[in-house]
Order: sequence, then C-alpha cells, then structure tokens
Amino acid sequence: MNEMKHTISVLVENHAGVLSRISGLFSRRGFNIDSLAVGVTDDPEISRITIIVSGDEHTVEQVEKQLNKLVEVIKVKTLKKGEKLERQLVLIKLSVPLEKRSEILTIADITGASVIDISQTTMTLLLADTYPNVLRFEEITKPYGVLEEVRTGTIAIQKGAETMTFKK
Amino acid sequence: MNEMKHTISVLVENHAGVLSRISGLFSRRGFNIDSLAVGVTDDPEISRITIIVSGDEHTVEQVEKQLNKLVEVIKVKTLKKGEKLERQLVLIKLSVPLEKRSEILTIADITGASVIDISQTTMTLLLADTYPNVLRFEEITKPYGVLEEVRTGTIAIQKGAETMTFKK
Repeated sequence: MNEMKHTISVLVENHAGVLSRISGLFSRRGFNIDSLAVGVTDDPEISRITIIVSGDEHTVEQVEKQLNKLVEVIKVKTLKKGEKLERQLVLIKLSVPLEKRSEILTIADITGASVIDISQTTMTLLLADTYPNVLRFEEITKPYGVLEEVRTGTIAIQKGAETMTFKK
Repeated sequence: MNEMKHTISVLVENHAGVLSRISGLFSRRGFNIDSLAVGVTDDPEISRITIIVSGDEHTVEQVEKQLNKLVEVIKVKTLKKGEKLERQLVLIKLSVPLEKRSEILTIADITGASVIDISQTTMTLLLADTYPNVLRFEEITKPYGVLEEVRTGTIAIQKGAETMTFKK
C-alpha cells in the first residue's frame, strides 16, 4: 500500500467540453479527485488544470496515460514531492460581534490572512496558503462561527527555474 | 444586447461525476464558461462550484434551470453585481536576474503580491486579488518575462452578513 496524493498539471486547448471529458474520464475510471482547479494561462487559448488525485504509482501512470489520449491535452506532468509549490485560496465569512473584531485582526495578522469585508455582525477573511495552513486557519477561526466558506482547488507550480513549457 | 458576466454559485453533493455532468451541461447547451472553480465547503460532503458565464439574462435563467434539474445540485444562486466579492489566485514565475530582484520586491510590495520562491534566475510570485487587479499585475510583470503562470478560477462570496446556506 502506497496510497498518497499526487499533483498532476495538465495543459489543454481551451475548447468547450474539455473539462467535461477530463472529469468524465476520472469518474468513469474511478480515480478519486481530491481537488481540481482550472484557469487560463498567459495564452488565452490554453488552460491549465491542476488535479490532486489519491492513489498509488500505478494509478498515476494510468491517469497520465488516459489524459494523453485526449486530443485537447497538450501536456501532462506529475509534479514531484519536494519540487513543487502548492497554494489554494479560501474566503471565510465569520460571525463576529463588535467586541471580537480585534481578535480576528490579530488572527489575520499572524496567519497572513486579509480582511476583505465587514458588516455589523460579520467579517470576511481571505487566505492564500498551503493546504495544511488553510486547515490550521480553519481550526483557529472555527470557534467564531463559520457562516460560509468558499475555496478554490489547489494550484501548483514547480520550484526554482523549472517550467512546464509547451509549443503549439 | 445585454451580454455580461454572471457569477453563479452552485452547492453540490460531492459525488464522482458531478463535475463532469455540470461541465457537460454547459458545453452541450453552448453556454460560454469564462471561469470555473470547485472546492469543498466546511462540510466535506458538499462542494461549491463558482461559475462565471457570459450571456444575457435569459442565458442565466436557462443555466439556473438546467442546473436545478441535476440531482446532485443542492442550491443554485446567481450573485448580484455590487453584492459580491470575487477573488482569484495566480502564481507567476518570472525571469529575474540578480540586479532586478529589488524591482520585483517593490512591485510585490505595491500590488500586495508575495514572493514564494527564488532561484538564481527566477522569482515566483503569488497574488490573490480581483480579476482586474490580476490583469494589472500581469501587465506590470510582463516585461520581466513570464516563464509560467498558473491561475485558479474565480471564487465569489456575498458581501455583508448574507450567506448561501443549505440544509441537508
């Protein structure tokens, strides 16, 4: 048993239906997606999809193989542990009475979160950090009452000067 | 003609295949997705998908109607202009020779970006901001040579104390 999380970056042509085909491939084959994030690259015709998938080495090889079969897929790369930077974005709306506002500011200050909205009874915080740090942030803000939480999936980039390049 | 961008938040049961069905629905009907972001909520069985779609009022009504037909969909809400906060996350790897590093630090300082990695020849920056601010950030960093760029889709939350709640 060598079940772990793998980060797969996929460059795709930005056609209608490509996301549907990729996510369909995963669900049909029973691959377990932990997170999926899709965004355009600096080339608006190319999107990059970051997929976090649980499984052993064999699963990842199968995923790569299946992805490479799709015509819209330009490049597939599994980013190695220790060679990647992963971040996700989370917005959390907390129930905060007036007298607790300074406590929330202290938490934001220490965790690197920003307060992006405030009302009589709430504060909304933004955090862009690693998954473990987001979990810790959720834990420390939980006692204040989480009214709403919105997350992106995780995105990843290689450390150092290495890049995932492509030629059209 | 009243073509504009609409932000639709969808709460869904976290089943395999739900993303495939939703993105398939969009591509089959010819709805134009500008951005899609999916992440779990504080309830791990519920995911929240934020979709930015271009079109007129009629398109949005159709999208809402079709989404509501899917069994995994718990709630659909179009967030109104002026009542929503939208953010996205971007990682940009720039080509930066030693003598330009302080220029990049200045840009990061002013734009609110953070430097998350450095090598002999590169720096990698993180920015979590609105779409217009991300565009401006891309413009100012472009002259340094963008080696790689990874973005999440846009996520959105309502301003103030309003929430998108659900009961199972």
